[in-house]
Amino acid sequence: MATISTDQISFLVALIGADYVLYDTESLEKYSRDETEKLKFYPDVIVKPKTTNEVAAIMQFCNQHLIPVTPRGAGTGLSGGALATLGGVILSTERMNSIIEIDTRNMFVITEPGVITEDLMNAVKEKNLFYPPDPSSKGSCFIGGNIAENSGGPKAVKYGVVKDYVLNVELVLPTGEVIWTGANVIKNATGYNLTQLIVGSEGTLGIVTKIVLKLLPLPKVDLLMLVPFKNLNNASDAVSAIFNAGFTPSALELIEIEALKITSKLIGNHSVPVSDDIAAHLIIETDGNDKEVLMKEMETIAELMQQYNCEEIFFAEDANQKQELWKLRRRAAEAVKLEGYTIEEDTVVPRAELTKLIVGVKELGKQHGFKVVCYGHAGDGNLHIRINHPSIKNSYGSEEMINILKKLFELVKSLGGTISAEHGIGLIQKPYMDIFFNKTNLQIMRSIKKVFDPNNILNANKIFDIN
Amino acid sequence: MATISTDQISFLVALIGADYVLYDTESLEKYSRDETEKLKFYPDVIVKPKTTNEVAAIMQFCNQHLIPVTPRGAGTGLSGGALATLGGVILSTERMNSIIEIDTRNMFVITEPGVITEDLMNAVKEKNLFYPPDPSSKGSCFIGGNIAENSGGPKAVKYGVVKDYVLNVELVLPTGEVIWTGANVIKNATGYNLTQLIVGSEGTLGIVTKIVLKLLPLPKVDLLMLVPFKNLNNASDAVSAIFNAGFTPSALELIEIEALKITSKLIGNHSVPVSDDIAAHLIIETDGNDKEVLMKEMETIAELMQQYNCEEIFFAEDANQKQELWKLRRRAAEAVKLEGYTIEEDTVVPRAELTKLIVGVKELGKQHGFKVVCYGHAGDGNLHIRINHPSIKNSYGSEEMINILKKLFELVKSLGGTISAEHGIGLIQKPYMDIFFNKTNLQIMRSIKKVFDPNNILNANKIFDIN
Repeated sequence: MATISTDQISFLVALIGADYVLYDTESLEKYSRDETEKLKFYPDVIVKPKTTNEVAAIMQFCNQHLIPVTPRGAGTGLSGGALATLGGVILSTERMNSIIEIDTRNMFVITEPGVITEDLMNAVKEKNLFYPPDPSSKGSCFIGGNIAENSGGPKAVKYGVVKDYVLNVELVLPTGEVIWTGANVIKNATGYNLTQLIVGSEGTLGIVTKIVLKLLPLPKVDLLMLVPFKNLNNASDAVSAIFNAGFTPSALELIEIEALKITSKLIGNHSVPVSDDIAAHLIIETDGNDKEVLMKEMETIAELMQQYNCEEIFFAEDANQKQELWKLRRRAAEAVKLEGYTIEEDTVVPRAELTKLIVGVKELGKQHGFKVVCYGHAGDGNLHIRINHPSIKNSYGSEEMINILKKLFELVKSLGGTISAEHGIGLIQKPYMDIFFNKTNLQIMRSIKKVFDPNNILNANKIFDIN
Repeated sequence: MATISTDQISFLVALIGADYVLYDTESLEKYSRDETEKLKFYPDVIVKPKTTNEVAAIMQFCNQHLIPVTPRGAGTGLSGGALATLGGVILSTERMNSIIEIDTRNMFVITEPGVITEDLMNAVKEKNLFYPPDPSSKGSCFIGGNIAENSGGPKAVKYGVVKDYVLNVELVLPTGEVIWTGANVIKNATGYNLTQLIVGSEGTLGIVTKIVLKLLPLPKVDLLMLVPFKNLNNASDAVSAIFNAGFTPSALELIEIEALKITSKLIGNHSVPVSDDIAAHLIIETDGNDKEVLMKEMETIAELMQQYNCEEIFFAEDANQKQELWKLRRRAAEAVKLEGYTIEEDTVVPRAELTKLIVGVKELGKQHGFKVVCYGHAGDGNLHIRINHPSIKNSYGSEEMINILKKLFELVKSLGGTISAEHGIGLIQKPYMDIFFNKTNLQIMRSIKKVFDPNNILNANKIFDIN
């Protein structure tokens, strides 16, 4: 790989204008981080193209000169996908921030990648339409980053994840060529599903420059409750019971008391009861079009929860209480990270195995002398495990922590799960890929990477190493 | 490509036993067809392995000797995917017909590919679970074939297609190597989504030998009605109106009167009213857990239909009437084919463009002197177009028909649609791929094929030609 020269920077300036080619110290500092642990990698230059053609020209140039390119959305990622580990160019999509069209007749939206997810959700909501995938970072993350990581969020348990909404993308290949991967239709059996290959490929196969997302009718009502348990195992067993009783809530979250208390402290005043003698809470939401039906459903679920020895249930009475409760869940990651829980794993297991995973990880913490809190999308079996180790604050590059995490992932594997549900592999989960995939599988992934990116210039060094 | 020798047949016999290596005239005849038009291609030999290891050994052998292999499920396909166009081996999955495990706690099923789809649906239904994708051929098709074609069916409009249920597959590569593509979890952001690459790849990338499918709680109630329209455009406009009013029916089918009359004749006695002065019917189903809510929903939809000038609505009163009504829809393909409508296209457009598609295809029929009837999954924009041409009974190999169909697909493209929603490309839709995909895209697909199948032995000659 070449590093970038001043002549090359001049070429980029000529291409998209000096305002959008940054290499001052402050910018390099700002773009050296994302939300992953405490890692820093400096790019040589940041480019901010506005159009597909500009992206294509940049890629063609970088491909020709073997300059590493790291695509970047809002930099809210949790696996290091947007970190410029090899220097070179950071390609930011922040200026590609238009919602191109909301097709209300056909119920899809065409958007550029640099739109903030919540802005997109609100824009379609105004037309009485619904885009469900709502990662905790929805207020700041970009929809393009959500495509890259196949993001989830609380609503995934009923509505699925990002991949379930992406119909078609415009993709600039590392060579600068441009393709559309599919069609703007909700059923498609026309050739290989390149759309689904791109979703979750973490910006290693191409730069997504336009996205077509399926929309749903907006549900008219939702109800929310917080269910406390003195016993963590009871809480996670209750999760499976809800589905086995025939319900599919629109959210089913688990949060350990330690995480809730830390977040509560960060947020300050609120009306949600957080008491000391509780081990964990479930947050249960249902949605639909008929309030009476939902009330009945919530009552039945509440009765079911009592069979698992829950404590007094808190029903959110109004929009304000709902918002408070969701804020406590959504800001958990930020809060516990500030408190020293810097290492986060995004494990996922079949949902009935949650209890075993939680017990196992607590045991691991005892053995290796670290504190651990768990929270996450329990309905999906997706548990975020936050680790507060007295001396190791990054998993990346720490042999000791990598060995601990290998044990964790062996446990996850034995339960039928995998490394990541919604954060991706990126940089920091690479050491565990061969626990889950055999050599042949990994070789196929590498060969697919080569089909799209023969010179290995696009987000190289992520997901797996090219050998 | 080599043709197969008697020595090679002996090797296959030694591998899996003489009972399961067939090359008598009757067998060759039987396996020369599927349900596509009136096409026939003879294999040299049919093999029926029982285990993954046997499949792997067969593939390794054929790869080494460059023997073409065509994988085959139940032979119900409509795009020629299971036809042995190059001779060689047909690999039938009919003996791999066990449901391995229904995991009720985690709500998934692990199955072999040779299980009949309806048998699978019934087996999970007994455990109060629901596998929704129900192609018209569900009583005879194999779940493995459904994976190959990314099948749909009436319920796709609410519940999605096969791809939305496949969590993980065991895949034997053309080289004989074996991989699992994913994990048995409902959220997954771990490496490239090979699972979704395999679904809909029409048996060109590997042989699927085990499948893990997500299941849902079984809805407790469904309601069904038949809505007649004198005007076809009113019927298709009414389709969009239902969604725009905030409803997602569990089925929303359109069937033209000619197709309904032909099917009615084939089936014989039934209680569904089929009157002469109607142009088309919508079949509308809703499902859920609360009958009262559904009744209210159906009433609101019925009122809405009246705004589109529907005639008298027929509500299916009981299970028997529901079954009769569904039979009329499900057997339409078979009935109209017997009546001379031998050519079937599986077009899909954004649903609000259905009217334009129907008008356009009728116009094309007038111009080129053929009769056409339409039916299909209108809620998905998926229209099956059946063509009865006085002299051309196959599209395959007919230059005149290919030129007509090119015009049809140009229209589909101009409406934002694509070639196939649920039947796949197979053999007969290959001539139209470059209408929808640019050269770069097709080259990527070819290169991916090469990653999996370097010697091009597995279902070669399908989807696209390897140049």
